[in-house]
Amino acid sequence: MTQRIEIYDTTLRDGTQGEGVNFSVSDKCRIAEHLDAFGIDFIEGGWPGSNPRDVKFFERAKKLKLKNARIAAFGSTRRHKLTCDMDSNVQALLRAETPVVTIFGKSWLFHVAHALRLSPADNLEIIEETVDYLSSRVQSVIYDAEHFFDGYRTDPAYALATLRAAAAGGPQCIVLCDTNGGSLPETVGRVTREVREQVALPLGIHCHNDGELAVANTLAAVSAGASHVQGTINGYGERCGNANLCAVIPNLELKLGRDVIGPERLRRLRDTARFVSAIANVSIDTRAAFVGDSAFAHKGGVHVSAVERNPATYEHIAPESVGNNRRVLVSDLAGRANLLAKARQLGIELNDEQDVLNELKRLENEGYEFEAAEASFELLISRLRGSYRPFFKLLGFRVIDEHRGALMPMSEATVKVMVGDRIEHTAASGNGPVNALDKALRNALKEFYPSLTEMHLVDYKVRVISSNLSGTASLVRVLIYSGDGRTRWGTVGVSANIVEASWQALVESVAHKLISDGVVPPCDELQIHDTNNSLKGAIG
Amino acid sequence: MTQRIEIYDTTLRDGTQGEGVNFSVSDKCRIAEHLDAFGIDFIEGGWPGSNPRDVKFFERAKKLKLKNARIAAFGSTRRHKLTCDMDSNVQALLRAETPVVTIFGKSWLFHVAHALRLSPADNLEIIEETVDYLSSRVQSVIYDAEHFFDGYRTDPAYALATLRAAAAGGPQCIVLCDTNGGSLPETVGRVTREVREQVALPLGIHCHNDGELAVANTLAAVSAGASHVQGTINGYGERCGNANLCAVIPNLELKLGRDVIGPERLRRLRDTARFVSAIANVSIDTRAAFVGDSAFAHKGGVHVSAVERNPATYEHIAPESVGNNRRVLVSDLAGRANLLAKARQLGIELNDEQDVLNELKRLENEGYEFEAAEASFELLISRLRGSYRPFFKLLGFRVIDEHRGALMPMSEATVKVMVGDRIEHTAASGNGPVNALDKALRNALKEFYPSLTEMHLVDYKVRVISSNLSGTASLVRVLIYSGDGRTRWGTVGVSANIVEASWQALVESVAHKLISDGVVPPCDELQIHDTNNSLKGAIG
Repeated sequence: MTQRIEIYDTTLRDGTQGEGVNFSVSDKCRIAEHLDAFGIDFIEGGWPGSNPRDVKFFERAKKLKLKNARIAAFGSTRRHKLTCDMDSNVQALLRAETPVVTIFGKSWLFHVAHALRLSPADNLEIIEETVDYLSSRVQSVIYDAEHFFDGYRTDPAYALATLRAAAAGGPQCIVLCDTNGGSLPETVGRVTREVREQVALPLGIHCHNDGELAVANTLAAVSAGASHVQGTINGYGERCGNANLCAVIPNLELKLGRDVIGPERLRRLRDTARFVSAIANVSIDTRAAFVGDSAFAHKGGVHVSAVERNPATYEHIAPESVGNNRRVLVSDLAGRANLLAKARQLGIELNDEQDVLNELKRLENEGYEFEAAEASFELLISRLRGSYRPFFKLLGFRVIDEHRGALMPMSEATVKVMVGDRIEHTAASGNGPVNALDKALRNALKEFYPSLTEMHLVDYKVRVISSNLSGTASLVRVLIYSGDGRTRWGTVGVSANIVEASWQALVESVAHKLISDGVVPPCDELQIHDTNNSLKGAIG
Repeated sequence: MTQRIEIYDTTLRDGTQGEGVNFSVSDKCRIAEHLDAFGIDFIEGGWPGSNPRDVKFFERAKKLKLKNARIAAFGSTRRHKLTCDMDSNVQALLRAETPVVTIFGKSWLFHVAHALRLSPADNLEIIEETVDYLSSRVQSVIYDAEHFFDGYRTDPAYALATLRAAAAGGPQCIVLCDTNGGSLPETVGRVTREVREQVALPLGIHCHNDGELAVANTLAAVSAGASHVQGTINGYGERCGNANLCAVIPNLELKLGRDVIGPERLRRLRDTARFVSAIANVSIDTRAAFVGDSAFAHKGGVHVSAVERNPATYEHIAPESVGNNRRVLVSDLAGRANLLAKARQLGIELNDEQDVLNELKRLENEGYEFEAAEASFELLISRLRGSYRPFFKLLGFRVIDEHRGALMPMSEATVKVMVGDRIEHTAASGNGPVNALDKALRNALKEFYPSLTEMHLVDYKVRVISSNLSGTASLVRVLIYSGDGRTRWGTVGVSANIVEASWQALVESVAHKLISDGVVPPCDELQIHDTNNSLKGAIG
């Protein structure tokens, strides 16, 4: 039970079959280096026979200085009626010059008949010959038995025959694939156990998530004796994706007690998930197990007070063990305990400040939501305590959205602010009112606060709240996420007017950036004239 | 093995513990009606003792005409040293007047000691007494054994004692909860089996997804004999969410062969997932099993050609069985069946109209979403067929949002339209740009179309789509629900500019109202000058 589990990452190959996931050659190199440092054993880089971009990656990959990982090239068995020497796909695998080659063959007679249009015997011969050919020319060969579980369900004898054919070719490992992703954990466990009795080689597992069961299926195979696990970071992959290594690895280490990458590297799990998602430009589901922003976020009042007493009450593992953090969300379901805990997390002690607590509750009732807007929450508390010093005074803004006849609509914003004793009056146009306002505000401020040029909007969310009867007269809550290349932060604005709500969130975002950078506001007296109206209720 | 599995949905209670998921009372009512039609057995509406908004929902819920589902109110066992008669939480459950009450109690000694600070014996007494008290006053009581699997792991005898205490109170069903979401399927299956031998009542299962195993854990419990399943639509819920009913239900029906909602209703699975996500204003992961846009999308060339020959080569189930569609990402064949079905639903036959289909696909790719905007869909089809006659011609609009110093911001809109041969130029102010625009448009038109005064906006939703990098430069989709006291209808607009997107949806809403009222546009020649720019791409 203490056998080490090898991790085979196919983010760079199967992961890119996912909708909206594409990597350039240099993206792939950066990810490979990161995965290597993270402790992954094998990195499948691509399919040189099917994709010219992958050929370039393998050229570049030779120069990567990897410490743990070995690069694998992926391809199919030779075509019918060709020798391996003649088959361009097989030759492309050799030209990739990788230490590992992974070759897939068919285990399911249905596929042999319908996709390959081959006889069962020809398929067996092709498998054995291709594995054998490559085994004598490459450091190690891994055999992926495509559709193994579907094949075994319909004809177990033939499915096993394909594995024996592969085994005769001398691969390092045989991988059972649930290619269509529809198998159940019970089946995967049972079949893996049965195969183990028939095949002497180490077994691997490759699952897809079409039943939302890929992680469970992977664990079932490991419990049944598989020692090699394939998957992708964040579960990217065709259709519903591959087994998510960001859930498989911590489950193996922390729940099944297996030796995988070790506790030290496991602390880089969340960082790895975020790194790959940033390069893929696909945001991580906030609810993602282990690595999501919400994975250790507590909203319900009962939960919050219990977690404060002892985290194990509502946390299945310590968030730090996977590099994540506990977060206490502030919402109308929550009580006092939430607010105090949240403040404490941000390094603010709020013990007996009844005024502050009451004001927070009042704002929440008005529609403010601080759970995704920690930056606004911090600013709010310093405002309520009177320690906030504004960076500018708003003299006025105006936004015009104009649509004339058949022309496309456009937006223009003007912003007039006072910074210290100087007045700036700027204008900007944009493809919408918020875009124009954001540009105009930063135009006005950048001369005084040059670090604002580093900042950009990452995401913008709008919600209509308390939408009871009057429709557009309802309140609008705007959440803005901003970033400066180093960190990201969220701010919130609420108003009946969407432009005003956006303005509030923009101003808070700028203030957070400047405070984080240690910038000092120009002139103390501004404080008493603070009319930027952001979080107006809080200012009084 | 053919026992029917009951579904208990807690989207409206546990689902709202999820970060970013909030529902108004009327949102909850709409979701409850939809879940009822979908075939859900129990709908947990909220926690009346902890949240005043939930009390309002239970008042409104009494008037809902549900066909299948029974509404449940949720709450905790009575507090220590109080009788049930004195406990405000227990009394709030009775005041909710629901046919079902679900009560949770503690199974884990660690929690009894650390969260409740009670003796083990007191906890047992509290459980039995509360269940007993409610059982004699409510149609049916369900007992949720919170943290059951953690409790059973550390002290099986005590965990079972809590179930016996609950059973003595006479509930309909006892639900084993994996509250912290960290259990493995093997454990859940084994423990459920062991409990079944000890407890004679029907068992239920309630899982959380902290290990990305909630669906597998739920299935393991059902295989071990549980007949009642709790979860949420789209897996919303605290931290990593609850067991996702959109994966649990089809797995039970299609993989385990259990009778749940039946094949007919199962075809509404994707529609249900999208309905709830639209109201929650949280987009569905494109990779979501069964219901995601990518769940049956084929990108790889090998896969595509095989699927074209026989879908079972790379699909674990028929997409139609869950109301989803095959999509071939490299071709534009996708979604045809979906569109035809949608049109048919609205009484429009679209058989061979390739132009119409292509245009619909193009608009959906641009970000239009017609699921909640049937009125726009109908208008679009009549536009594409050339049978739409506009009610006015837009000559221009302008919206000014102004914020001067300490004054409150205000918005003013001007609208200039031509109706027949008359030009109307009106202005209106409002508390936001959309409100002002809506008023100005209806001011301009009411003289010609008096029935527009009956109309009002019911709801307004904004979603930023394709939010990649540039923040506010992303597209904005606006959904508007309007009503006239008799019916309600939804319209959609998409633009980089939120004011423009809102304008499109407003114009469509007005057009739908006038067509429904049988109003005839004033002058045919307008058709060729249609520049209201709504669904611009469709007009050409």
